[in-house]
Amino acid sequence: MDIPYKIYLTEEEMPKAWYNIKADMKEQHEPFINPATGKPCTKEDLLPVFCEELVDQELNTTDRFIEIPEEIRNFYRMYRPSPVVRAYCLEKALGTPAKIFYKYEGSNTSGSHKLNSAAAQVYYAKKQGITKLTTETGAGQWGTALSMACAYFGVDLTVYMVKSSSQQKPYRKAVMETYGAKVIPSPSDTTEVGRKILAEDPDSPGSLGCAISEAVETAVKTENCRYVLGSVLDHVLLHQSVIGLEAKTALEKYGIYPDIVIGCAGGGSNLGGLMAAFMADKLQGKKAPKFIAAEPLSCPSLSRGKYAYDFGDTGRITPLLKMYTLGSGFMPAPNYAGGLRYHGMSPIVSKLYHDGYIDEVRAEEQRRVFEAATLFARVEGTLPAPESSHAIRVAIDEALKCKETGEEKVILFGLSGTGFFDMSAYASYLDGTMTDYVPTDEELAASFAKLPQVG
Amino acid sequence: MDIPYKIYLTEEEMPKAWYNIKADMKEQHEPFINPATGKPCTKEDLLPVFCEELVDQELNTTDRFIEIPEEIRNFYRMYRPSPVVRAYCLEKALGTPAKIFYKYEGSNTSGSHKLNSAAAQVYYAKKQGITKLTTETGAGQWGTALSMACAYFGVDLTVYMVKSSSQQKPYRKAVMETYGAKVIPSPSDTTEVGRKILAEDPDSPGSLGCAISEAVETAVKTENCRYVLGSVLDHVLLHQSVIGLEAKTALEKYGIYPDIVIGCAGGGSNLGGLMAAFMADKLQGKKAPKFIAAEPLSCPSLSRGKYAYDFGDTGRITPLLKMYTLGSGFMPAPNYAGGLRYHGMSPIVSKLYHDGYIDEVRAEEQRRVFEAATLFARVEGTLPAPESSHAIRVAIDEALKCKETGEEKVILFGLSGTGFFDMSAYASYLDGTMTDYVPTDEELAASFAKLPQVG
Repeated sequence: MDIPYKIYLTEEEMPKAWYNIKADMKEQHEPFINPATGKPCTKEDLLPVFCEELVDQELNTTDRFIEIPEEIRNFYRMYRPSPVVRAYCLEKALGTPAKIFYKYEGSNTSGSHKLNSAAAQVYYAKKQGITKLTTETGAGQWGTALSMACAYFGVDLTVYMVKSSSQQKPYRKAVMETYGAKVIPSPSDTTEVGRKILAEDPDSPGSLGCAISEAVETAVKTENCRYVLGSVLDHVLLHQSVIGLEAKTALEKYGIYPDIVIGCAGGGSNLGGLMAAFMADKLQGKKAPKFIAAEPLSCPSLSRGKYAYDFGDTGRITPLLKMYTLGSGFMPAPNYAGGLRYHGMSPIVSKLYHDGYIDEVRAEEQRRVFEAATLFARVEGTLPAPESSHAIRVAIDEALKCKETGEEKVILFGLSGTGFFDMSAYASYLDGTMTDYVPTDEELAASFAKLPQVG
Repeated sequence: MDIPYKIYLTEEEMPKAWYNIKADMKEQHEPFINPATGKPCTKEDLLPVFCEELVDQELNTTDRFIEIPEEIRNFYRMYRPSPVVRAYCLEKALGTPAKIFYKYEGSNTSGSHKLNSAAAQVYYAKKQGITKLTTETGAGQWGTALSMACAYFGVDLTVYMVKSSSQQKPYRKAVMETYGAKVIPSPSDTTEVGRKILAEDPDSPGSLGCAISEAVETAVKTENCRYVLGSVLDHVLLHQSVIGLEAKTALEKYGIYPDIVIGCAGGGSNLGGLMAAFMADKLQGKKAPKFIAAEPLSCPSLSRGKYAYDFGDTGRITPLLKMYTLGSGFMPAPNYAGGLRYHGMSPIVSKLYHDGYIDEVRAEEQRRVFEAATLFARVEGTLPAPESSHAIRVAIDEALKCKETGEEKVILFGLSGTGFFDMSAYASYLDGTMTDYVPTDEELAASFAKLPQVG
């Protein structure tokens, strides 16, 4: 059967349930620790921050599938199913015998996969009677996605946007405002933690960790308000499992099973969502692909981080998570892949990597990433996000290996988003002013020394 | 049968031929006139400006269908078929019994339908051995589309971008450069006509007409170079017929035929492409929809223009076209719908309107357009381009009429593009600083007085 350029599922073939990978994991990741008590977080500890249904999903380790409510499936129908695309033109440009596929999550206005979890989180908040939400955003894709979901379901939203991103991407702010959100560059003077950071460094470019602190502080101090997070947490990965479920079903229609699955990893929601349906095979002892995580050399949490308990935020107010971390005080150098500038990593992804289920991590230098991005844009048409371009880089490298060996491997990578709002990054690549920064061992050691002591 | 949110054709169902509406028109529009001789343009007159196959298509009034070459169909497969979307959420928000559908042409990196003709034009140029192309761009969508096609087929490109648009949309320029194009704000000092305009008004915001003059001048003065145009001409409308062909086939799958077809009209390529397959029915005396063109109040070529011979450009160097025109010297007020800021209108669209085949024209005020755009974005998710939002405005008004009368009309409109690069426009709408300008009768009369005398 000829493989089309784009494989679409019908709306009836779309997943009706999310896949909860934890139900298949041999060992669970360590529980959250309440930093105030030093003990594992209870459901009650989490309820002031997150709405109840999401807490239940966060703690659910037994149900393999969790039904997607009809209202969320209707929201999904506005922009899903997303296609699995055969990168015929990229294959030809590389002269590789490899078959390259990508799951494209960028063809919605938020420009990324983030909308999959935004819709779910806002729906459950609304259902619980929550009227206000807060969040942080790095590259702006999560904030945009959440703004769209909040506009649709009718919930107020305040977004703390990493200051360096808000300066690089002024129009992202305008998109969120068009959808009715209030956008505050972080660190800001609207929170205690923000004021403290500004006092130490008035020119702080901010970070995801810092923006998280501000959003959480505002949520717990505001009536009928909750905090929502676009990555890292188990329930976010649960929602993102639609990516891999759809991709697997689409490829199966043509009798295809990938040899390699590649995803970029910042907080872990894209990689976790893309690989879950395939990782299920590995966890069940079946034939499975090789899994490769791609991250930036300037923020290498998986490749150079410690597997340890740490705060999820810079302000050290969240529960402690056992994860690969560069230290919650680590301030990643400015990098155009704003969505990957996070000190930690999803506990699920961390555990799977630690236990050897994720085969490999590649930390990529930003100019090599944009070289891949520009090639991809020119031959495949679609302009990729800098984050996703880390996965493109690895996919191209794997395809070039196949060219040497003659192997016809099937490569699947996640094209998690588009680069429409990253043009200053592309411009800096094109005019040769782009640089990159690799943290020194000393910097990392100093950051690790500040990790919280647990147990 | 339940109508899904999005109706996709398979790649096999995509059109294999473009529809040439002229073969069905009872009367052809008047021929181009060569301003130097005062006589109808011959094929030879056009060959220094356009490549041969496109000239043949431009002059073809007999073949109802013209085959789409395999290479172009492969390019189309990267981003087509585009979906027909049922606007369930907009219907609900309006409380209308009308069934609203839109053909969505924005889910490619160029962000609009323009890619359909760009691919064809670059392919034919390459086939003829042309190595360089020039063009103009207003909103930037055509320039981006052409940059993508030139990158794919390997042809050099220089884009003259309307200066006001290049200032409003700096990142559009960066996108085109990422795809390897050279971008020059127009009017510029690189051409005689540009230097003349700058001498008269150094602060000229430019216009599509002026950018066309510069691009044509450069094309004819450069070896092995041709000019390509993103709208207006018959061969562009021919390529854009895929929009309506796909839409008609998609709706037929569910037994649906529209009562009303609405398209925004700047140069006419979107409206012409969307309506052609349906207009075929009207031309053949069958049941047909009501056709409504939407244009900006500030540049009302159809509603207030003269049906007369005029130059296609400000510099008065193109052939004369019989069309609805505000006068080639008319400088439209700055308006965020850059793609609709053109003094003239496609000769095919003009002829169809003049002969009563297009039923109605609505000239819309910019704030009402953005009111519609913002509502659409919030309930349907997708952020529309200002140009397309003119059609949304009319569709909403028609749906609200149905609410009054209780009629369940089927409305189809063209969502020709996305608003990712129009955030300064949305910001100006949201903060209340958006204004609009309606040309006075005196201004138009003065412009009409300068129309060229023909015959």
